[in-house]
Amino acid sequence: MTTENINTETTAFLSAEDLLNHWQGHRRLTRRVIEAFPDDKLFIYSIGGMRTFADMVMELIDISAPGVAGIVTNDWGNVTAFSNHSADGKASTKSELLALWDKETEEINRAIPMIPEGRFQETILAFGQYEGEAYSTVLYFIDNEIHHRAQGTVYLRSLGIEPPAFWNRD
Amino acid sequence: MTTENINTETTAFLSAEDLLNHWQGHRRLTRRVIEAFPDDKLFIYSIGGMRTFADMVMELIDISAPGVAGIVTNDWGNVTAFSNHSADGKASTKSELLALWDKETEEINRAIPMIPEGRFQETILAFGQYEGEAYSTVLYFIDNEIHHRAQGTVYLRSLGIEPPAFWNRD
Repeated sequence: MTTENINTETTAFLSAEDLLNHWQGHRRLTRRVIEAFPDDKLFIYSIGGMRTFADMVMELIDISAPGVAGIVTNDWGNVTAFSNHSADGKASTKSELLALWDKETEEINRAIPMIPEGRFQETILAFGQYEGEAYSTVLYFIDNEIHHRAQGTVYLRSLGIEPPAFWNRD
Repeated sequence: MTTENINTETTAFLSAEDLLNHWQGHRRLTRRVIEAFPDDKLFIYSIGGMRTFADMVMELIDISAPGVAGIVTNDWGNVTAFSNHSADGKASTKSELLALWDKETEEINRAIPMIPEGRFQETILAFGQYEGEAYSTVLYFIDNEIHHRAQGTVYLRSLGIEPPAFWNRD
C-alpha cells in the first residue's frame, strides 16, 4: 500500500451538512445530560472547586450560536450584542436552561446552512479576538460541549446517577 | 441573506489533512493530561465507581489506531488482531502508558494519509460490528477521547491538581 497518490489536503472528510447532523446528535445528548441532573444540583453541585454544570452549559450557550452567527457574515461587530447571550435572561431553573438550549439549537440549525462555500477554510477572528480557520472555531464549540458535558457526567456519577449513554445520539 | 444557493451537502467543512491536524492537537493535550496525574493516582483513583483514568486511556488506545487502520483497507478481518491493542502489553506505569500513546500517535499519522478519497463517506462496519459512515467513526474516536479526557480533568481537580488548559493544543 502506498500513500503517493493521496492528497489529504483535498480529500474531503466532512461536509457542512454532515457536520450539522453530527453536532445536533451531540446537542441531543447534552440535553439529556442536563435533564438527568436533579433541579437543585444542576445549579449548586460541583467537584474540586469547578463551576456548576449549569454555569458550564451557560458558557456553551454564550458562544455556540453567537459564534456560528458571526461566521455566517464574518462581521463580528454585530455579534458583540450576542456575546453575552445569557443577557436574554440567565436561566435559574432547569426548564429555563433547557428552553435556552432548544432556542440555540434552532439558531444553529438555521445558521449553518447560511455559511457560504469556502468560509470554513478562511481564517477568521471569532468574537474579534480568537484567530483561526472557521472550521476550527466550529470544532472548538463542539469539542468544548463534549468536554463540559463529560465533566457533568462525573458530577452525575458522584451523585449516584447513571449518565445518558455517550454513544446514543438519537 | 438567503440560503437558496448553498448546498450544505457539498460545502466542504473539513479535509482529511485538517482532521489529522485537529486530532493531533487533541492527542497532545490528552498526553499532557496523562502526564499531570501522579503515577499512582493514574491507576487507582476514581470518582463515583467510574474507571481509573489509565483504564479510560487504554480504551482510547484499543480503538483509535486499530480503527483507523481498519478504515484504510475496510478489511476488518485483519483488524481483529488489533482489537485488543493492549495485548501488546498493557501499561502498568505512567511511562509505559505514555509510550503506548506515542506509538499510537505515529500509527495514526501514518494511516490517515493512506485512507482513499471517498472512503470517509462510505458506510463501514467498524470492527465488524459498528455501522456508520467512516467519517462518523473517526469523529467517534476523537469525541470519545475528548469525553474521557474531560472526565480525567475532574479527577485531577478533585485531587487538587490544575489540569492542562483545554484551549492549548500545541
